[in-house]
Amino acid sequence: MATYKEAGVDIDAGEEAVRRIKGPVRETFTPGVLTEIGSFGGLFHLAASGAMRDPVLVSSIDGVGTKLKVATRVGKHDTIGEDLVNHCVNDIAVSGARPLFFLDYFATGSLRPDVFEAVVLGFAKACKANGCALIGGETAEMPDLYKTGDYDLAGCVIGIVERDSIVDGRDIEEGDVLLGVPSSGLHTNGYSLARKVLFDRYVAADTPEALGGASVGEALLRVHRSYLDSIQALIAEDLATGFSHVTGGGIEGNTRRVLPDGLDIAVDYSAWKRPGLFRLIQEVGEVPEEDMRRTFNLGVGLVAIVPAAKKARAKTVLGALGEPAFEIGRVVKADAA
Amino acid sequence: MATYKEAGVDIDAGEEAVRRIKGPVRETFTPGVLTEIGSFGGLFHLAASGAMRDPVLVSSIDGVGTKLKVATRVGKHDTIGEDLVNHCVNDIAVSGARPLFFLDYFATGSLRPDVFEAVVLGFAKACKANGCALIGGETAEMPDLYKTGDYDLAGCVIGIVERDSIVDGRDIEEGDVLLGVPSSGLHTNGYSLARKVLFDRYVAADTPEALGGASVGEALLRVHRSYLDSIQALIAEDLATGFSHVTGGGIEGNTRRVLPDGLDIAVDYSAWKRPGLFRLIQEVGEVPEEDMRRTFNLGVGLVAIVPAAKKARAKTVLGALGEPAFEIGRVVKADAA
Repeated sequence: MATYKEAGVDIDAGEEAVRRIKGPVRETFTPGVLTEIGSFGGLFHLAASGAMRDPVLVSSIDGVGTKLKVATRVGKHDTIGEDLVNHCVNDIAVSGARPLFFLDYFATGSLRPDVFEAVVLGFAKACKANGCALIGGETAEMPDLYKTGDYDLAGCVIGIVERDSIVDGRDIEEGDVLLGVPSSGLHTNGYSLARKVLFDRYVAADTPEALGGASVGEALLRVHRSYLDSIQALIAEDLATGFSHVTGGGIEGNTRRVLPDGLDIAVDYSAWKRPGLFRLIQEVGEVPEEDMRRTFNLGVGLVAIVPAAKKARAKTVLGALGEPAFEIGRVVKADAA
Repeated sequence: MATYKEAGVDIDAGEEAVRRIKGPVRETFTPGVLTEIGSFGGLFHLAASGAMRDPVLVSSIDGVGTKLKVATRVGKHDTIGEDLVNHCVNDIAVSGARPLFFLDYFATGSLRPDVFEAVVLGFAKACKANGCALIGGETAEMPDLYKTGDYDLAGCVIGIVERDSIVDGRDIEEGDVLLGVPSSGLHTNGYSLARKVLFDRYVAADTPEALGGASVGEALLRVHRSYLDSIQALIAEDLATGFSHVTGGGIEGNTRRVLPDGLDIAVDYSAWKRPGLFRLIQEVGEVPEEDMRRTFNLGVGLVAIVPAAKKARAKTVLGALGEPAFEIGRVVKADAA
């Protein structure tokens, strides 16, 4: 086993794997990373993230659930790392934070250097795209806990926001509009149900018509998107009063988390065309509509809550980023929902 | 499933488990935790950690390896969380950092509320002892990945240090003394070997004479110690030029990581009495001395590298904290090792 230790990135893996990931990991390093210091931890120089009056650190830890099992089934491991980074980044971005750095945990029964490399390259790619340094990692081999070929991932992101710029939903008002920003697929939620339904009927290479040419495996592995740029663009023009990252719990479950007391949301589920993957799961699995809404994002990965008067400008700003945002509902009084 | 969401602590678990952990998790909250904000991430107000001129964030992510399998075998889950927190805290403390907050990942096949509660209470206990807020967590149920009863843990700690107070080993000089601070047992390393050796011969309840009355299970589950207070006390009087947290790689492997180029260490393994657990593993497993040294801490959980002239004071400072530090070697020229 070779060891890659730099700026807290402590990776024990095959020599070839370590050689291959070294460059891509280093490419994620932003000026804040103190690489000159060999250390047990990853060091990040806060001043390098820009002068701040009253900074608040925003952090989140997460996994990717059983999307892992799809990656293992299909034998495609180069995007699951992106899924994890983007999921974590979105969870802090909705507070208005920008990510500073990310740390990963990779646990497996027996390390397969090619799989390890693919996963870490996914972390590195997404970290770079989000302007976030891959500053630390732990690789664990536990043959008694994981079956050969299986692995689990956890990731932790730390970001920063000015205290008076935190987006916390307190300014959300009745009549605000819910703008949906498209997801790319299931993101990282609902995989236990989706796998059960789809793999009872199909193999991963099947291309049911509803998927418009994609295979079941491809559709299920589509990368969880990062909404960092969209969120930051709306914040820059003060266009949103809140954001919700649509994960487990669905559009309503997640969006209700950011509402002030006394308010609720009314979502019009007919307002957008539900992507084929969700329609296929519902049809094949005969999944009740209520379960679909609670389990899946249904094509909406991010909800931006926007004052009605700013709706047109918000759509223009998102459109300029290539985001065809669509109105999916409104904020209402709690008893009117 | 009930959900506990507060300041980024997002826990889906049995209602009873959530009810029980809520108080202890909240007790870890330091003034920096912005609890008033329901959020997708955990928010920490940096100013609450004290005024700093030029702060550096120090972070580490880790697991506890197959010590988990001992906890599962013995059915004792209330200390494994402490192991993880203390391991992570030590990894940043050796740079001079104090921990600000901790996030955990708990993945299992099927959530057992009593086990979950015990593990989280362990996190909370150790976080509180280290002055570190348990600010976030993710609980994942993945029956296809983990066997019933099995679980894995990952934890991430974020700490802070003044840039000009980072302890990075650059002032280490030939002749500096290596002071060993006692471990409580294996801490979180070497469990694959230790389990294989000991459980081939004993059951967990056995009390071999070398363990001085403790059972094999008790000895193996002894909590990974936190060295935060010892490290901070030495730093406060400028008594140390470097620290090494002795984990996988042993005393030499870890201590070499902090040495400047051109220096090495000479460890005198006869300088302290090796605890019974290590002697038992070596004897029962006929483990070569070299493997013992590379795999285990051998009774030394922390090495403080101290200028010879400050050795006596350093020992006094540690002694006042109840730490019977002992001299285990010296810093030497690289070619003289």
